[in-house]
Amino acid sequence: MILDFTHAEIWQSTVHEIANILSPHGAVGADGTRAYTPNDFSVHFFLQLAIIIIACRVVGWLGQKILHQPQVVGEMIAGVILGPSLFGLFLPEFQAAVFPKEMKNVLYTGAQFGVGLYMFMVGTSFRVDHFAKKGKSAMAVSFAGISAPFLLAVLITPWLLTVPGLFADGISQFNATLFMGACIALTAFPMLARIINERGLANSSLGTLSLTAGAFDDAVSWCVLAVVLATFGGGPGVAVLAIVGGVSFALFVIFFGRRLLAPLGRMVEEKGEMSYTVMAVVMILFFLSAFFMDAVGIHAIFGGFILGTAMPRGKFVEELKKKVEPFAVIVLLPMFFTYSGLNTRLDMVNSLEMLLIALVILAVSVLAKFGACYLAARLTGEDNRTALGIGALMNARGLMELIIINIGLQKGIIGLPLFAILVLMAIVTTVMASPVFEAVYGKKARESGELGAVPDNTRS
Amino acid sequence: MILDFTHAEIWQSTVHEIANILSPHGAVGADGTRAYTPNDFSVHFFLQLAIIIIACRVVGWLGQKILHQPQVVGEMIAGVILGPSLFGLFLPEFQAAVFPKEMKNVLYTGAQFGVGLYMFMVGTSFRVDHFAKKGKSAMAVSFAGISAPFLLAVLITPWLLTVPGLFADGISQFNATLFMGACIALTAFPMLARIINERGLANSSLGTLSLTAGAFDDAVSWCVLAVVLATFGGGPGVAVLAIVGGVSFALFVIFFGRRLLAPLGRMVEEKGEMSYTVMAVVMILFFLSAFFMDAVGIHAIFGGFILGTAMPRGKFVEELKKKVEPFAVIVLLPMFFTYSGLNTRLDMVNSLEMLLIALVILAVSVLAKFGACYLAARLTGEDNRTALGIGALMNARGLMELIIINIGLQKGIIGLPLFAILVLMAIVTTVMASPVFEAVYGKKARESGELGAVPDNTRS
Repeated sequence: MILDFTHAEIWQSTVHEIANILSPHGAVGADGTRAYTPNDFSVHFFLQLAIIIIACRVVGWLGQKILHQPQVVGEMIAGVILGPSLFGLFLPEFQAAVFPKEMKNVLYTGAQFGVGLYMFMVGTSFRVDHFAKKGKSAMAVSFAGISAPFLLAVLITPWLLTVPGLFADGISQFNATLFMGACIALTAFPMLARIINERGLANSSLGTLSLTAGAFDDAVSWCVLAVVLATFGGGPGVAVLAIVGGVSFALFVIFFGRRLLAPLGRMVEEKGEMSYTVMAVVMILFFLSAFFMDAVGIHAIFGGFILGTAMPRGKFVEELKKKVEPFAVIVLLPMFFTYSGLNTRLDMVNSLEMLLIALVILAVSVLAKFGACYLAARLTGEDNRTALGIGALMNARGLMELIIINIGLQKGIIGLPLFAILVLMAIVTTVMASPVFEAVYGKKARESGELGAVPDNTRS
Repeated sequence: MILDFTHAEIWQSTVHEIANILSPHGAVGADGTRAYTPNDFSVHFFLQLAIIIIACRVVGWLGQKILHQPQVVGEMIAGVILGPSLFGLFLPEFQAAVFPKEMKNVLYTGAQFGVGLYMFMVGTSFRVDHFAKKGKSAMAVSFAGISAPFLLAVLITPWLLTVPGLFADGISQFNATLFMGACIALTAFPMLARIINERGLANSSLGTLSLTAGAFDDAVSWCVLAVVLATFGGGPGVAVLAIVGGVSFALFVIFFGRRLLAPLGRMVEEKGEMSYTVMAVVMILFFLSAFFMDAVGIHAIFGGFILGTAMPRGKFVEELKKKVEPFAVIVLLPMFFTYSGLNTRLDMVNSLEMLLIALVILAVSVLAKFGACYLAARLTGEDNRTALGIGALMNARGLMELIIINIGLQKGIIGLPLFAILVLMAIVTTVMASPVFEAVYGKKARESGELGAVPDNTRS
């Protein structure tokens, strides 16, 4: 079993790893070279986590102080910095020693746990009552924010499919188009909700419209992704399992979840706090849901999100947030940003053609969200300033985009070059949001006293 | 990189794993059989965590309700149940499918993270002022609780060394004796402290003496373990690195830690809560300390514990507890109990000889702690009831024992048979504590109104 008679000499083993990682396609581990002892895993894990959290905090802090960006922007960038595009480019041996490929699966597991928990928490604060206020404008903005992306995806995907390596070989044009559409249509809904709530805009035109359209567009995008995942690659048996499994789970939670979970909510209300037993039950349900949606072939995050929507509101969610969020946000999510960053190879965007593709995708993405939502708001009677504000917020994609493209990469829907391009698109559209929103809406609103101060520490 | 073009069919891959795990020494993975995709890791991880937390909670609950045992006892037993001794014995294929060996390193990493954080939290509530109250009795009990175990270890270790497989080949009698002594001398100090505080015994004779002696004996035992780890196996270079590294770290934290960390404490006091930034700094320091002590060859838990002792007290530790403990206790520690349980092969205690060894070690352990501490308390003037109560509490070894023997197993100091025997010793001495304490002290004290109700949910 786990008997480790040789003492782990970290510095010496590090040299081995450097050699291993520099030939990433070598048969390392499969050809009888020294396997990792358990101790190697924990030594690397502790070092990685220290470096990951330092990077996320430092870059996040710089982003906040210098560029007035929310923390999440800094962490997205920190992940890319830790990967082959920067840390790996300038200090290849050190980077390889810190992030040997033997550790990738541990990092991956932590990252999936992190985004799963994150989407679970997003689910717990997902409010259906965002829909249906402000009838006509809301419908128009929602519809524009979902139809323009898919329309433009229909236009550019045939071209993208002619470039080898962007999509999986043999992917159908239908699936490729749906995936691109979902990538473009996604909004950093949680970041948007937090900005709007923190600034007291929830009852303004801008707040209502953005929240409604953001929630609606994200819900549609994730459903489309689920369809792609269910139908891509595995043949009819796999698709049936995914569709039947996913739909049954969602229907079960929607119809019975609230009622079955209500007693947990009452226990917390009565006690005034969440006992360890109740929290353990919540964690068990979370792991089961994530496992189920992962096992049927959709993705763990759907399990987390759907379960989250059925959790009792009020004190229960408040207590859950206090107990789960710090750890998820400070320790686990940075693992996701790093895992994503380790797969981000900006050097793949190195030809004129790739650069052109990157610019086109960026332009199309901005046009499809900023442009379309602005136009829809204007056409249904909103003033210019509100419409611009809505467009700016709807255009930010944040962590949501990283989640969807990591799923696409992991499931083999897209290749590394398109992944890198979409990482750039995610970062640029998210970075744009704050200054554009300030310029078109925030500054004037603050002058007229309608808007509070710029909040720190928003996170998509 | 991480491109996973084949969709993970969990049930099908499960069949493969069953085959793999049933031939644990086969060259699986090294001979070209299908390697795990990242998705396999997350699917298994979510399933494992669900099962692990369910097992810990259910067995813990049964232990509390039926046997009036603290939660930790149930979780120790739950780990053994999930391992080869029960789950693996009756449902070998299912057990192998849930806990394939490919996942062991992920579980190991989570387990190390869990005990590291746990020992960090123990460090934060470690109070030096426990020492030095009640002069003579305190010294006598402390001294008895550490000298009797090492004396008895000197007596039985030569015999144990004649049995092949209990200790590593070629281990010196000196190191084997020290390790055995530390195993026998350890007390479940955190559990003891919690029982005493929760029942309002902190200022009683029993409370003062147990806390002083428990803290002192544990501190000595861990120092002895550090010496063993530093000098075992690796040759002089490794020993020097371990000793110099470990001592420098400890001295640095002891002399400068409090002062350097004080500003963090003030930030929390001023704000009235712990910001994410402060918590991130704490986590970074924790990971760096754990990494450092792991890398020099001692063990991550020492890094966590020593750092913990230097953390600012008061509001700071209170807030830290709220943010870190739920997750550590509910999600991470059960991974440790399970990892430990997966290595516990009770079938190795299958001969008359092994059974005899197990009984002798158990008897010696009870004699060395219960007996010696009782006697020391009586001889320095404590009444019979108090002395018995002290003996009962000092005899519980709880999670602390599991930590030390897992380190012994991982570093190759002891083999699987002795590991299994010491797991039994840990469980039996911990299970004994509550009923014996009740019988000799608690019942009468409660009748006379000196003692509060039995608390739920104590944890070693």
